[in-house]
Amino acid sequence: MHEIDLKNYSIRSDLVVDVMAGLEGEKGVHIEKRKQENISVTDVFLDQDNPLKKKEGHYITICFDDVTDTTNRKKIEKIFVEELKRLLEEKELLGKTCLVVGLGNYESTPDSLGPKVASKVLVTRYLFEMKDVEVEKGYSSVAAITPGVSGTTGIESSDIILGIVERIHPDFILAIDALASSSIERINRTIQMTDTGIHPGSGVGNKRKEISESTIHIPVIAIGVPTVIDGVTIVSDTIQYMFKQFSYNKENIDKKSQKLAPITSKNYLEQEENLTQEEKKEILGMVGNLSEEEVKSLIFEVLTPIGYNLMVTVKEVDFVTECLSKVLVKGINQTLHQKIKTEEESYF
Amino acid sequence: MHEIDLKNYSIRSDLVVDVMAGLEGEKGVHIEKRKQENISVTDVFLDQDNPLKKKEGHYITICFDDVTDTTNRKKIEKIFVEELKRLLEEKELLGKTCLVVGLGNYESTPDSLGPKVASKVLVTRYLFEMKDVEVEKGYSSVAAITPGVSGTTGIESSDIILGIVERIHPDFILAIDALASSSIERINRTIQMTDTGIHPGSGVGNKRKEISESTIHIPVIAIGVPTVIDGVTIVSDTIQYMFKQFSYNKENIDKKSQKLAPITSKNYLEQEENLTQEEKKEILGMVGNLSEEEVKSLIFEVLTPIGYNLMVTVKEVDFVTECLSKVLVKGINQTLHQKIKTEEESYF
Amino acid sequence: MHEIDLKNYSIRSDLVVDVMAGLEGEKGVHIEKRKQENISVTDVFLDQDNPLKKKEGHYITICFDDVTDTTNRKKIEKIFVEELKRLLEEKELLGKTCLVVGLGNYESTPDSLGPKVASKVLVTRYLFEMKDVEVEKGYSSVAAITPGVSGTTGIESSDIILGIVERIHPDFILAIDALASSSIERINRTIQMTDTGIHPGSGVGNKRKEISESTIHIPVIAIGVPTVIDGVTIVSDTIQYMFKQFSYNKENIDKKSQKLAPITSKNYLEQEENLTQEEKKEILGMVGNLSEEEVKSLIFEVLTPIGYNLMVTVKEVDFVTECLSKVLVKGINQTLHQKIKTEEESYF
Amino acid sequence: MHEIDLKNYSIRSDLVVDVMAGLEGEKGVHIEKRKQENISVTDVFLDQDNPLKKKEGHYITICFDDVTDTTNRKKIEKIFVEELKRLLEEKELLGKTCLVVGLGNYESTPDSLGPKVASKVLVTRYLFEMKDVEVEKGYSSVAAITPGVSGTTGIESSDIILGIVERIHPDFILAIDALASSSIERINRTIQMTDTGIHPGSGVGNKRKEISESTIHIPVIAIGVPTVIDGVTIVSDTIQYMFKQFSYNKENIDKKSQKLAPITSKNYLEQEENLTQEEKKEILGMVGNLSEEEVKSLIFEVLTPIGYNLMVTVKEVDFVTECLSKVLVKGINQTLHQKIKTEEESYF
Repeated sequence: MHEIDLKNYSIRSDLVVDVMAGLEGEKGVHIEKRKQENISVTDVFLDQDNPLKKKEGHYITICFDDVTDTTNRKKIEKIFVEELKRLLEEKELLGKTCLVVGLGNYESTPDSLGPKVASKVLVTRYLFEMKDVEVEKGYSSVAAITPGVSGTTGIESSDIILGIVERIHPDFILAIDALASSSIERINRTIQMTDTGIHPGSGVGNKRKEISESTIHIPVIAIGVPTVIDGVTIVSDTIQYMFKQFSYNKENIDKKSQKLAPITSKNYLEQEENLTQEEKKEILGMVGNLSEEEVKSLIFEVLTPIGYNLMVTVKEVDFVTECLSKVLVKGINQTLHQKIKTEEESYF
Repeated sequence: MHEIDLKNYSIRSDLVVDVMAGLEGEKGVHIEKRKQENISVTDVFLDQDNPLKKKEGHYITICFDDVTDTTNRKKIEKIFVEELKRLLEEKELLGKTCLVVGLGNYESTPDSLGPKVASKVLVTRYLFEMKDVEVEKGYSSVAAITPGVSGTTGIESSDIILGIVERIHPDFILAIDALASSSIERINRTIQMTDTGIHPGSGVGNKRKEISESTIHIPVIAIGVPTVIDGVTIVSDTIQYMFKQFSYNKENIDKKSQKLAPITSKNYLEQEENLTQEEKKEILGMVGNLSEEEVKSLIFEVLTPIGYNLMVTVKEVDFVTECLSKVLVKGINQTLHQKIKTEEESYF
Repeated sequence: MHEIDLKNYSIRSDLVVDVMAGLEGEKGVHIEKRKQENISVTDVFLDQDNPLKKKEGHYITICFDDVTDTTNRKKIEKIFVEELKRLLEEKELLGKTCLVVGLGNYESTPDSLGPKVASKVLVTRYLFEMKDVEVEKGYSSVAAITPGVSGTTGIESSDIILGIVERIHPDFILAIDALASSSIERINRTIQMTDTGIHPGSGVGNKRKEISESTIHIPVIAIGVPTVIDGVTIVSDTIQYMFKQFSYNKENIDKKSQKLAPITSKNYLEQEENLTQEEKKEILGMVGNLSEEEVKSLIFEVLTPIGYNLMVTVKEVDFVTECLSKVLVKGINQTLHQKIKTEEESYF
Repeated sequence: MHEIDLKNYSIRSDLVVDVMAGLEGEKGVHIEKRKQENISVTDVFLDQDNPLKKKEGHYITICFDDVTDTTNRKKIEKIFVEELKRLLEEKELLGKTCLVVGLGNYESTPDSLGPKVASKVLVTRYLFEMKDVEVEKGYSSVAAITPGVSGTTGIESSDIILGIVERIHPDFILAIDALASSSIERINRTIQMTDTGIHPGSGVGNKRKEISESTIHIPVIAIGVPTVIDGVTIVSDTIQYMFKQFSYNKENIDKKSQKLAPITSKNYLEQEENLTQEEKKEILGMVGNLSEEEVKSLIFEVLTPIGYNLMVTVKEVDFVTECLSKVLVKGINQTLHQKIKTEEESYF
């Protein structure tokens, strides 16, 4: 039969953890993983010539389960504060004057995380600007803006930010953005922080210009949470899960004792998939023998011409976004203002 | 290799057009299709013992492309008014007193269509209830409620509706609801109207009790728009599109003249897929030889145990829902109140 | 000169504390006052033939200062819980099944307090309705509805409530409503609770039918917070403050030692006004010698024909309503569900 | 009795029409009035040394009745477009590149007019910035921003605007702002346009820095609508209305034929008040003989120390603000983009 023409699906991943599989130990990549209860933290340090083709710098990724659970949310908040402080300390930015930038579109729920956070963060800069006012120790000078999206403003966010930075001269920027997820598992379940800023193609909105130290001339710490995913990724991930499940079943049907173990938990996800190429072909034919990247290209070629590679978000997007913004607001307040403790209820 | 254990994916489709394929002409099913420009209207009449296992009655389905385009929206609105009037006339309800019921959750965007519509429809019942007031001809008595969802109210919507109906005695109910789509193509692009009411399992929210003439004791006209879709459907649809594309390519590579026809349009969707079982197996192995229903069951079994059969909605859900609610509000106002014309701007 | 024609300004006060001045000790009226820090609590018990022409029953009024202050808000919340528990205990309703009713208009900020509270209260009734589910001790069966306003629904709230009550049979109703204030001092600074229900003419919306035990056939506990005020009251209150200030000045200018005391605090409000009729006439002429009720009638006659007796709310209405709803939601949750403590953060 | 100590109530009026009474014909002031049906338009030209102590320039004020009425709204929109075009033509700005600036606080309804308008205006600048794209004739380059309020951003709006202007270089600014009204009659019923920009002390928010050609270095056209009013003004206005009514009654009781004319219309507002000082003293004593400015100072001294000079807005603020923003958005779109006609429905 005729060949599949594999054009290139420009695999766009805003998350380093999504693309680092198998690169551990390679030149230019340094990875460290920790786990606290059910929350994992991954440090990725990339050199300039890293094989991920990502901007060099430090990426910290926090992976968690359910942010809508109150108990869980408190744990996430605590770790987020620890990690953000660590990143700021590393860059010698802790306690410096900060401009919080909420990227995205306030009026589009899946893209509203940045604006929601920026509009709730405790700002203090105007106090520091007042003559004859001495601000209590433990507070830093913080300002916050929501530059909007170019479809609504007609202006590139980077131009708005640069204009404001040139007038108020903050020491650094903390930019919050909703990202595209490149796996079902990570949607609404990941916070990525990096000292590399925001790069073209990232974010839920399109084709932004770079917002980083090289364009804004001050350090840009970016905090991103994946809130949307595309159809290609959903299909491609499902195929991988299918193989994992077949693999798990094969293993466990052989082991008689476990024959009746239900697959109703995530146990099969945690095991390595070990199907042969032959087995994969039996299950999924020609598609079964494509690499993950090739599968994505193929599905992209199927869905895109007919306009069905939808960018989607979960049905509960309003509630989840509210919960995520709560974690980020409280965490950012505690990080930027030493005096603020999590126990203190902030109006929010 | 071991067999695939095909448990039953309870294929839940709120849309008759999604499940009627191949049933045209069967006993108990009567189908009529029309097309006006790029908008199609399908009448489906089901008898009691129809093979779709759907409630007997009349289903009208309007399929369109892009509701966010203003010109298009006006066309959809016009056809919606015509079809809703036809359905009400058929049931002898046109001009009768109506209770509009907006089902769903106001605070969850993809499920907010019903409440948004019900809160904007022109209500007049209180005028008709006033002593010594004569309401201008051309207006009917209309009331509107948003019963909320049981997670927020603690009460079944059907109980709230029944309680109110027993006090105010409308002639019929017009229930608006956000639905689950069972195909990528129909999400946000379909309005389904039926005289059969709302049935368990339908809607974006879960497990509602039936809201129909048999439970509420007055006719219930239901208007539904699919706004969410699950992962299973996205994957299953993609597989069908893949076959269609392979089929299209096969056809057109043979026909030399069309060799260079780009697949960048929807042309391949409109052609029949004519791959042999052997070809399908070559492409997708064992999975390629499963029926659509079996594929869905398989994917359901893969995604559900790990919690990844996400119900999703499009990224632009806020804007699309706003546009859809506009069409429904304007259309319902013109249908229920003879005097209202589309040209008149209503505050909205 | 010609006489002032004093038609009757139907002095509409939703707050008992506003109209009880001077009635302490009269037949049919029993009043008790307490104060905790800067929060005062007043119990008013009215007999059937009370001179206030208010429905007989028990009225508890909590007066406080600034609900936007976090520390203050916690104190108000604590006292609100104590008093609401006391009222429910007195009526033997504590722990009984409750229907929370949020009266008012969700889409009009000053009238949105009821709907905001009802949509956030912890509902549990559906758990109690489930077969084979045993609900943890410490939780009661609570349902919550927002019946909307008749301008939007076309239906009297009382009809909606009665219809639902007849279907789900709660033991009592807890109705939350935004009220009209009859003094500048009380706006957004008062919570009134009563076992007498909601009466015609009360609330920010107009002309509601009675919602009380005599119409709904189960006890109706009403919780009201004044969020709007009319122009007549602002003017009339200002005249009283003016007299108080003149009176204060007279006193303190005579007492040489205090000559320089600034009036920049509220000290003059706490002193009795003791101007003679002659002095009042000197200051405000004929108007100075009218009773407060006559002054209101006069101003009403001036402002009403020209449409300028505006019902107004404070500029910060969004923020204040948010804070007030927070207090009520947290307080109601703790009162209805023994298990819930204030420390537990509820998602809100 | 002791004297009234008249300290200065810094009469703050954002509206020129409120303070121009009696100045017609004076040096430095040129006034022209027109009326179309029930909408009046007033041109005020002020020289540098004008007695109003206002910035020199051209002020156009449109006064109307009820913006919530659809028919009325269309008339207001039409006149608004005519007048705004006239002002822009006069300054040779019609068709030039424009930055729309929505001043105020999105999250505080009475102060949200600016942000609401700026977020809905049709922006086109990004099209003009694209290489190889030729924008259809009849559209100008328009960008729009909402700088927020310093309490939320920590940054002066003027700094944000200046920063952005310096980056994108528009030809002029169109700044929309909610104002404080200095009379009951004008609240929500006035649009003021001026070429003088925004000045300290104006607006619903406090103490902004000047936003005008002298600070931003490009022309700043300001569009303001009064949406809030303070208690002092309500009381002071009521006193003036009282005098007018007494005056009207005096007149009409003498003229026997009109004896029974009801005062239920606004007829008494349109007549000159002609009470003698003696009559005023009879009615309102010492206060009756104070000038309007003195009355305001007095009331200010009464209400301010006790914190009761509330800034208030009408109860229907949500609906009215929505209607006002509709007029401004549609009007601004038609003014800036020649191609846009009112009949075209814009999504909004």
